[in-house]
Amino acid sequence: MIKVGIVGGTGYTGVELLRLLARHPGAELKAITSRKEAGMPVAEMFPNLRGRVSLAFSTPEEAGLDQCDVVFFATPNGVAMQQTRALLDAGVKVIDLAADFRIKDVKVWEQWYKMEHACPDLVAQAVYGLPEINRDQIKGASLIANPGCYPTAVQLGFLPLLEAGVIDTGFLVADAKSGVSGAGRKPETHILFAEASDNFRAYAVSGHRHWPEIKQGLENFAGKPVDFTFVPHLLPLIRGIHATLYAKISADIDLQSLFEKRYANEAFVDVLPAGSHPETRSVRGANVCRIAVHRPQGSDTVVVLSVIDNLVKGAAGQAVQNMNILFGLDEDLGLADVGLLP
Amino acid sequence: MIKVGIVGGTGYTGVELLRLLARHPGAELKAITSRKEAGMPVAEMFPNLRGRVSLAFSTPEEAGLDQCDVVFFATPNGVAMQQTRALLDAGVKVIDLAADFRIKDVKVWEQWYKMEHACPDLVAQAVYGLPEINRDQIKGASLIANPGCYPTAVQLGFLPLLEAGVIDTGFLVADAKSGVSGAGRKPETHILFAEASDNFRAYAVSGHRHWPEIKQGLENFAGKPVDFTFVPHLLPLIRGIHATLYAKISADIDLQSLFEKRYANEAFVDVLPAGSHPETRSVRGANVCRIAVHRPQGSDTVVVLSVIDNLVKGAAGQAVQNMNILFGLDEDLGLADVGLLP
Amino acid sequence: MIKVGIVGGTGYTGVELLRLLARHPGAELKAITSRKEAGMPVAEMFPNLRGRVSLAFSTPEEAGLDQCDVVFFATPNGVAMQQTRALLDAGVKVIDLAADFRIKDVKVWEQWYKMEHACPDLVAQAVYGLPEINRDQIKGASLIANPGCYPTAVQLGFLPLLEAGVIDTGFLVADAKSGVSGAGRKPETHILFAEASDNFRAYAVSGHRHWPEIKQGLENFAGKPVDFTFVPHLLPLIRGIHATLYAKISADIDLQSLFEKRYANEAFVDVLPAGSHPETRSVRGANVCRIAVHRPQGSDTVVVLSVIDNLVKGAAGQAVQNMNILFGLDEDLGLADVGLLP
Amino acid sequence: MIKVGIVGGTGYTGVELLRLLARHPGAELKAITSRKEAGMPVAEMFPNLRGRVSLAFSTPEEAGLDQCDVVFFATPNGVAMQQTRALLDAGVKVIDLAADFRIKDVKVWEQWYKMEHACPDLVAQAVYGLPEINRDQIKGASLIANPGCYPTAVQLGFLPLLEAGVIDTGFLVADAKSGVSGAGRKPETHILFAEASDNFRAYAVSGHRHWPEIKQGLENFAGKPVDFTFVPHLLPLIRGIHATLYAKISADIDLQSLFEKRYANEAFVDVLPAGSHPETRSVRGANVCRIAVHRPQGSDTVVVLSVIDNLVKGAAGQAVQNMNILFGLDEDLGLADVGLLP
Repeated sequence: MIKVGIVGGTGYTGVELLRLLARHPGAELKAITSRKEAGMPVAEMFPNLRGRVSLAFSTPEEAGLDQCDVVFFATPNGVAMQQTRALLDAGVKVIDLAADFRIKDVKVWEQWYKMEHACPDLVAQAVYGLPEINRDQIKGASLIANPGCYPTAVQLGFLPLLEAGVIDTGFLVADAKSGVSGAGRKPETHILFAEASDNFRAYAVSGHRHWPEIKQGLENFAGKPVDFTFVPHLLPLIRGIHATLYAKISADIDLQSLFEKRYANEAFVDVLPAGSHPETRSVRGANVCRIAVHRPQGSDTVVVLSVIDNLVKGAAGQAVQNMNILFGLDEDLGLADVGLLP
Repeated sequence: MIKVGIVGGTGYTGVELLRLLARHPGAELKAITSRKEAGMPVAEMFPNLRGRVSLAFSTPEEAGLDQCDVVFFATPNGVAMQQTRALLDAGVKVIDLAADFRIKDVKVWEQWYKMEHACPDLVAQAVYGLPEINRDQIKGASLIANPGCYPTAVQLGFLPLLEAGVIDTGFLVADAKSGVSGAGRKPETHILFAEASDNFRAYAVSGHRHWPEIKQGLENFAGKPVDFTFVPHLLPLIRGIHATLYAKISADIDLQSLFEKRYANEAFVDVLPAGSHPETRSVRGANVCRIAVHRPQGSDTVVVLSVIDNLVKGAAGQAVQNMNILFGLDEDLGLADVGLLP
Repeated sequence: MIKVGIVGGTGYTGVELLRLLARHPGAELKAITSRKEAGMPVAEMFPNLRGRVSLAFSTPEEAGLDQCDVVFFATPNGVAMQQTRALLDAGVKVIDLAADFRIKDVKVWEQWYKMEHACPDLVAQAVYGLPEINRDQIKGASLIANPGCYPTAVQLGFLPLLEAGVIDTGFLVADAKSGVSGAGRKPETHILFAEASDNFRAYAVSGHRHWPEIKQGLENFAGKPVDFTFVPHLLPLIRGIHATLYAKISADIDLQSLFEKRYANEAFVDVLPAGSHPETRSVRGANVCRIAVHRPQGSDTVVVLSVIDNLVKGAAGQAVQNMNILFGLDEDLGLADVGLLP
Repeated sequence: MIKVGIVGGTGYTGVELLRLLARHPGAELKAITSRKEAGMPVAEMFPNLRGRVSLAFSTPEEAGLDQCDVVFFATPNGVAMQQTRALLDAGVKVIDLAADFRIKDVKVWEQWYKMEHACPDLVAQAVYGLPEINRDQIKGASLIANPGCYPTAVQLGFLPLLEAGVIDTGFLVADAKSGVSGAGRKPETHILFAEASDNFRAYAVSGHRHWPEIKQGLENFAGKPVDFTFVPHLLPLIRGIHATLYAKISADIDLQSLFEKRYANEAFVDVLPAGSHPETRSVRGANVCRIAVHRPQGSDTVVVLSVIDNLVKGAAGQAVQNMNILFGLDEDLGLADVGLLP
């Protein structure tokens, strides 16, 4: 059994890790830390875990994280980079669900995250944990930068097109919509029920931290710079991201076949039949990205629709998928939940 | 492996049975019938099942239901009673998720369901599938009447009080609230999103079909007639029932302890600590009833709060629980899902 | 034109007052105070007001409240009692939308609101602003205690029954459900969208501050003590209260006729036809309480269904109604909004 | 007083017309037709209208529509074109809220609406009722084609850019999201609460009927053909459209100033300050389009955010605005509702 520690378990990615790991047949929850809530059973904060998780929050000092095989960071940005080196030195593998190790250009990271990076050398060593791209590097890694939620949905949608070089990289648009759980569990006015319900709006049009992360990925796929516009929106639903992607086609190929071939061996990417419209609820609670590709009215525009559950394939589920790969388990172990519909 | 057939799989209890049985380690889905949708893969209608259920709908004639070990009816009221005798004669066990076999007094049933009963003798033979009451009878049964959703939440809430004889049976009130999935998947105006969202109302105050079913249960628990008022309401959420129960206390006892003892050995009834307020989301997708008991301001009124997921402990999950008991499996096999929160 | 000041305009009752007063033909908005937001145009905080309200928040010192004819307090509990005497002394009428002057027994108030009252003599002088009961006293008053939201819905529902003396006062139950705006606009975890959406639960079963307020009213109507149980619940919708009331009938009378007669001359109480179920959306944005009365299955239990918009008839609308009465205007001036449906 | 008739009042645009016209000081509701519901008071179907609208549905024969000054058609597509000529001949002005007269190229209309047009000559005569473009023609018209909801939001967002000729017309993208009321009040499975709530998806990517309507408008503004991609999505909220528009800038100008100048004299188009993100709730129930314009990260991409209430500025409100213009009333008469927030 893999001994698992979680740092920072009071947010939504934390409780989602607990939900998934509680039933994972190859993992054993050893510790979950929260300095503020030390001593409180996690099932008291998250009553869905009653009877399934008996662990209580502990202080980092008592948690014995260096005795774990793997530690997940479900913390705010900037925390993991302070603690990762000691864990790696102790032989513990680290999977960071925050952004500390996602962007290779440390200067860009510091500009967007408004802080100095504590360990630029570890950034270089970290593997970006998108298995559909980096499965082989993940296998041998000790530090995984788990991708952001928007970046997962957007990159998986553009990947086949950019790898095949069949779209114009001069005007890529991602119109992305996220459920409110993506904003976290901190009490803030704009995500109150009475503000976010029965309402819809864009945000951060002038610049969102996931923009440089996605851009880095798209440029890797394309092998050259891309002009990429990203507009996130806040959806009045709890879980789910829907990315609608637009590009100009530069080569005449069978798009449906391109996508189906690219993802033929991917257990967690589902290419829908031609003409489909994926729904966010079809992946609610499930570790899967469903994708449809369209070419409206025979124009030279391609429209890709990509949905994930932001807390699963966009966070905790992908982190468990990375853990499975890191430790040589079946990649889908503990990840067989069927989406909750309705 | 238990060979399972489902009659009527195009509604919400049908898709929920599929979600649960798809991963059940002791059951094998053999057939699901829908005359109207025969030939269509179920995963085309319910995209959450893509990659998990490969079955297509078949006509009743082709389905080979008499080759199954158990058949679930997820049909409108009045269907199961037409087909059950033939299945029982073929040695197939039957679990009816509709109301055909729930009410022992056939005259009462016919009055509330506005049709003549096709097989009153089978009503007498059927076991009411509330395992917390009838576990032993279920073990040896061949025909199970799976309880209604409201009746499950309300009966489990009143059960300890009535068995112990500590409340006045002259004025029992159940103020019950259900998510919209409880109304089924038929297109009707009043359950359209634009009608039911951001809205709340009572319905059927003059009489709801679950009233006689609950009354029958409460009178069995009490061993005498009860005066029972039931007011259902439509909640703007998908899954979940919250029953708020009111009664006058007639004996001075420790209510918290009464509930904890009654359900100490029940895997699927969770008595919360004193002072708690169960939330419907804590059981979303999970086969559990969570209950809290209160005595506000030291008065002689007891208030019980009882929540379930109407599609799981209130329908498909309880049906699978009954199947497990019927076939001597562990009662919680395939029912270990943790509630989806948030 | 009545010169109007508002103290504390950054919450939901504040913006609702602005929405109603912006179009009130007999009132003129002179000042709205917020020390924290002084200088910011209110339409910047509440974009629905763009083009309709040009006022900016001002500090209390600059606001010139003593030059107003009436000042509304849309503040947390405990603020109005500090400032009311000075305003009354300056000849300004005061309408407090918080709880400072609602409960006549100051000891009870202090116990539930956990603070010492600053001006018990003004409590005695204040008129409880439920026009359907106290219209005449309101006319001559200078200080109005605007009722709470739950108390408005519950009292209007029980009023005809208690005045007529036709129910047993030994076991009155109010099962009340409120939209999330009732919890205010302060950022708190439990009212985040991802916590309160697709979810339902009771709260404060052991005791809610509206319980003594309602009890005081019911006992006034009945002319004797009552045994009253109150359970509030949080609804996943923005605006709306639905109170479901239960009592035992002690005299055989025509309930429908009783309600219709009692409210025949009330512009803002609408008794629905027999057999109806009022919906919260039917009063969304409108200053009206809709009520239906039922006697299920010919039993001796009466069930009353009462709905209001908690921000309108339950707060700002009722406050404007009180202002109209105070200043001798038509009671419905500026209150003719039709409910927003769908 | 303008005598008003409404044909087809059982849908959402019908009840919204009633809500607005009930309080319009210059209009008098004379008749509302529904063959199916003839005799039923409209307030029975739509309880928000209780006490405000006393009209009952009547058959078309009894309605006396030819005695009205103006008739609104709130009917399915294809109805107005059958009845308009007789009304025009009787001197009645007609405002069609459906699509019968929106598209000038009758062949294109017939292809998208799958029926033969009954009166192509009237299509030529009809004025497209977008006052911000066609105010002068509306003044003298007798037949108004009220724009679709998506077309209103998208056209007002692109208008200043195309009129000024500052964007590349070779790749215009409108990613549009609509609340569920836009799908109407017909009972259909995909818009049930349990299907559309807590869910998000695109639809009709291969072609939506509003695409040719919008394209016609954009080409008029640009004075040349445009390449236009339109992807609609279904939002889990009742009212509101958010259109996110993307284009490449071809001339270096001050976008904020361009928009502010274009709409400086428009009462119902509100250009937000630079950097803003309009919310759908800011226009809930109000006849206004709020627009923000962005140029993310100094790129040459312009992003326009445009929100309306699909039932008001996108349907009934705009129809009343057109009525006001037709009859020489103040354009904002009866349209002063402040958006309902929260």
